[in-house]
Amino acid sequence: MLLKEMNKAQLEEFKAESEKAYEAYKAKGLKLNMARGKPGADQLDITMDMLDTLNSKSDMKCEDGTDVRNYGVLTGIPEAKKLFAEMLGVDPEMIIVGGNASLSLMYDSIARAMTHGVLGSEKPWCKLDKVKFLCPAPGYDRHFGICENFGIEMITVPMTPTGPDMDMVEKLVSEDESIKGIWCVPMYSNPDGITYSDETVKRFANLSPKAKDFRIFWDNAYCVHHLTDTPDTLLNIFDECKKTGKEDMVFEFASTSKISFPGAGVAVMAASKANIAQIEKILGMQYISYDKINQLRHVRYFKNLDGIKAKMEQHKKLIAPKFALVLGSLEKELGELGVLTWHKPNGGYFISVYTLNGCAKRVVELCKEAGVVLTGAGATYPYKKDPEDKNIRIAPTFPPLAELEQAIDIFCLAVKIASAEKLLAE
Amino acid sequence: MLLKEMNKAQLEEFKAESEKAYEAYKAKGLKLNMARGKPGADQLDITMDMLDTLNSKSDMKCEDGTDVRNYGVLTGIPEAKKLFAEMLGVDPEMIIVGGNASLSLMYDSIARAMTHGVLGSEKPWCKLDKVKFLCPAPGYDRHFGICENFGIEMITVPMTPTGPDMDMVEKLVSEDESIKGIWCVPMYSNPDGITYSDETVKRFANLSPKAKDFRIFWDNAYCVHHLTDTPDTLLNIFDECKKTGKEDMVFEFASTSKISFPGAGVAVMAASKANIAQIEKILGMQYISYDKINQLRHVRYFKNLDGIKAKMEQHKKLIAPKFALVLGSLEKELGELGVLTWHKPNGGYFISVYTLNGCAKRVVELCKEAGVVLTGAGATYPYKKDPEDKNIRIAPTFPPLAELEQAIDIFCLAVKIASAEKLLAE
Repeated sequence: MLLKEMNKAQLEEFKAESEKAYEAYKAKGLKLNMARGKPGADQLDITMDMLDTLNSKSDMKCEDGTDVRNYGVLTGIPEAKKLFAEMLGVDPEMIIVGGNASLSLMYDSIARAMTHGVLGSEKPWCKLDKVKFLCPAPGYDRHFGICENFGIEMITVPMTPTGPDMDMVEKLVSEDESIKGIWCVPMYSNPDGITYSDETVKRFANLSPKAKDFRIFWDNAYCVHHLTDTPDTLLNIFDECKKTGKEDMVFEFASTSKISFPGAGVAVMAASKANIAQIEKILGMQYISYDKINQLRHVRYFKNLDGIKAKMEQHKKLIAPKFALVLGSLEKELGELGVLTWHKPNGGYFISVYTLNGCAKRVVELCKEAGVVLTGAGATYPYKKDPEDKNIRIAPTFPPLAELEQAIDIFCLAVKIASAEKLLAE
Repeated sequence: MLLKEMNKAQLEEFKAESEKAYEAYKAKGLKLNMARGKPGADQLDITMDMLDTLNSKSDMKCEDGTDVRNYGVLTGIPEAKKLFAEMLGVDPEMIIVGGNASLSLMYDSIARAMTHGVLGSEKPWCKLDKVKFLCPAPGYDRHFGICENFGIEMITVPMTPTGPDMDMVEKLVSEDESIKGIWCVPMYSNPDGITYSDETVKRFANLSPKAKDFRIFWDNAYCVHHLTDTPDTLLNIFDECKKTGKEDMVFEFASTSKISFPGAGVAVMAASKANIAQIEKILGMQYISYDKINQLRHVRYFKNLDGIKAKMEQHKKLIAPKFALVLGSLEKELGELGVLTWHKPNGGYFISVYTLNGCAKRVVELCKEAGVVLTGAGATYPYKKDPEDKNIRIAPTFPPLAELEQAIDIFCLAVKIASAEKLLAE
């Protein structure tokens, strides 16, 4: 029965029952965490043998003869460039292999733009009165954090089932020269798990921004992170940009954080050769090289894209059941109540749910009081302000299955309580 | 006999003899490199067993129970903070453990100051009309590169045998609010190998800059890099600043680049707790964590400062003979000619020599033509301009001894030829 069709007495009974079950959980003093897209310990275990790849007997020369232990080789060892070029479907010359964090590659790209500008900038962005970014939302909180941190004004663009609202994107970038970029997670988007449609990617590749130094920040964080045997597919943005002659418009990012180790993976950036040349000049002041031993460790371990894919199959086996558990619980507990909607993702790290208007904060609060930490409500929007207070990001990968089961039970109870409270107050 | 006391005929004969020997070397088509302070392959070999420290069977929890493989712990794992705190003689709470490059910690510190300011800044430095840095010279070319890269005006301060000319430093910083910092390599300075005297350190700790957000960039790159059994000693800048109440004025940097691996070491920054708090807020937008597995690898391997010191003894055994070879050749070939002066360093990675005025570029050019690459003449000065064209930085660590012997022979011949040319032209 739909909750909104209950009368007051029914609603109050429903709420009381939910609260009773909720209080029982609360009494257990649980400490459960579904806040961040962190791999579980079992996922980290499957890559432990990577640590045996290089040992005291290893040949430490990379394929061009460079000793990876020593200084030098700013943009990455050749075999690492090849591996990531294969993963992203680009030319190895378009690759910069970074340190352990794609976040820092993105932050540094914005920081360089602020202090130096990008290729085509008339002046560094920090010398402009105003810099704005388009922020498809809900989106990745750390993208928005970078903007806020640099005083970049964020303009929210609604997400649709095929990606950002491209009518709005096209209109805004063509009119406003102060709009210098857009954040995209084009595959298994954070948090919605949506993959941009072919049309969306083509429209991105065909954008005609008023700002000559506009950049699409294409955070392809989940490019090989499938959850099913019928994964989504994403058009290659650089292939499309080749057709439109707009390859300079894109900065692409990825990493092995959720392939090998989040704390010690290898990050990568792809961009046109002209962009790479501009970046390299400044990057050479910041780094002599990133960690080349870790780059070599990764290439010797994975060997090629097939090696990465095989590892992702192992990850899938561990986390697909967690997604299934959460989706099953949501369906079972809330499917007939009409108080929560969600999208079943084919990959990525999140399940994004939408409560009734004005209930997300309350749900997160109720969860917290019962020992379940969720990403803060609103975090998926610029300035942490969800205009309708509806979106909650569930990250099911970190807790073991048994804990996750309890956590999602509590979550469902919290949704029931918050929804009943809302309907009773109307 | 002093070259300047030779008559024209003697000089011409001397030059012809030197050229004959030089041409013989040139005919060999050698490829030798004394350009950068790179450890030799034999130095890298002595740390290869570090790669066995962590393997697939290792406990990957650090001492507070954190799984180092996963996300989190922005400023470093506790045991790494302790190790580097011991090395630098500061409180672990003053430590940020970084990635593989202290250069990037320094660059990022300047970049943050440009876009956000440092603690006490009224506005980000990029919003100021002018930002200036004091640059003791000769100094480290990459420090100067960072300044040039950010459009920071460099003011050269002469080096003396006890450190930078402190009369000049004190006067300039007290008068000019646009002077926001100074670069220092206080121990075994790059390139001169000078260690700042106690008085110099005390005067630094007692500076009263007009700019409230002035910072001393204390690049303690060679803090444990001794070449003799009677090493230099350096006062602890933070101890001195505690006495003057000016602990916020210092950013200290170091790394294991020349302790473990240049390409895959661990870098560290030390600063007052108030500075760390300001930095951490912005750093948290750039990084979730640096590579914690590599931090753990380093701590499990070195264990403590004694472990680091033991490793530095091994390095010393390998590189002290190279320094001895170079210094011996300089003395033997040039000691009585009065055309070159140098300082015998007790540590660090360089031998800094001074030619007759106007000869450094010519010496570097002659060396290059005979296949010996040196750091470009002038590189040790702001804007790569050595006002007297005198200073050359010799980096003896990278070539094997046999190659080094040839390289320094060629260098001495180049000095002889260039000096004779100069005296003949007078």
